[in-house]
Amino acid sequence: MEDLRSAIGALIAERDWEQFHSPKNLAMALSVEASEVVEHFQWLTEEQSRCLSPEKRAEVTEEIGDVMIYLTELAEKLGIDPVEAARAKLEIN
Amino acid sequence: MEDLRSAIGALIAERDWEQFHSPKNLAMALSVEASEVVEHFQWLTEEQSRCLSPEKRAEVTEEIGDVMIYLTELAEKLGIDPVEAARAKLEIN
Amino acid sequence: MEDLRSAIGALIAERDWEQFHSPKNLAMALSVEASEVVEHFQWLTEEQSRCLSPEKRAEVTEEIGDVMIYLTELAEKLGIDPVEAARAKLEIN
Amino acid sequence: MEDLRSAIGALIAERDWEQFHSPKNLAMALSVEASEVVEHFQWLTEEQSRCLSPEKRAEVTEEIGDVMIYLTELAEKLGIDPVEAARAKLEIN
Repeated sequence: MEDLRSAIGALIAERDWEQFHSPKNLAMALSVEASEVVEHFQWLTEEQSRCLSPEKRAEVTEEIGDVMIYLTELAEKLGIDPVEAARAKLEIN
Repeated sequence: MEDLRSAIGALIAERDWEQFHSPKNLAMALSVEASEVVEHFQWLTEEQSRCLSPEKRAEVTEEIGDVMIYLTELAEKLGIDPVEAARAKLEIN
Repeated sequence: MEDLRSAIGALIAERDWEQFHSPKNLAMALSVEASEVVEHFQWLTEEQSRCLSPEKRAEVTEEIGDVMIYLTELAEKLGIDPVEAARAKLEIN
Repeated sequence: MEDLRSAIGALIAERDWEQFHSPKNLAMALSVEASEVVEHFQWLTEEQSRCLSPEKRAEVTEEIGDVMIYLTELAEKLGIDPVEAARAKLEIN
């Protein structure tokens, strides 16, 4: 996770994206990427969703990577540790 | 992350949720939780989104926790490491 | 549709919401409401989704109403007729 | 609206899509299309979102058309009139 945060920070600095990456915009990007995951599953049966073809699985892997990138960046901008936030939420349940 | 995966697995076993947690349904839940993050930001200016009140920040932390939980569970169901998927995606960029 | 547009315009004027209702923010609100529709279906089987209980159907009706409100308002802000846009899209297909 | 419903019905019959178009799947498709609207706005300022270029506006028109198509189809499958649902929701407010 620490390496991931550094790699994201380096890419944003290199592309000069900081100006666009307000928490508001990152929240939008997070939900757009989550929907791109959904897009792969929308016409599959639940059963089919349990055994993806290698090609489909590779595409879903990329979308999951995108969700993880925006989630990590948004959380960092807000000073939140996403793994800790998940653990705390599980305890509430 | 390893602890988080175990804690999620334990909760699902305890509640007997496995039957509902197909990848298709988890993808839906992931996008619903991502939208609950967005909901906190939709009427804020970008500037306001950079300095949340402590109450708002606590609410967003819970939603980020939920996104992280479903992302971790969906990825595990598909045999994908989300941190590795994020790193691979950053390299493509 | 014309009556609906007038009623939306009247509510926004009465509440003084115009300042918050940029197309960017309305797009966010549209996707948040669409996810609230999804939330009702995420743990149902496809079969169950075809025969909702009266209570569930009433809740989904409200969410569909919300999606329609934001879609109508966003489209109007951009000078787009959503019914005409749908017909044009069907012809492309 | 009546013409739109007929045109959607004709396309679904022609493509033999009925089997895939459960309310659950249509709700997913609705949210995916709403996110495609959001995608056009995520890196714009609110000000920029008020004055789209003609090219961008044409792309957003297509996405709004897609949202309208799935909203109309989902509502019809559930026996809901989306315009009436919107009016009823405005009255609650």
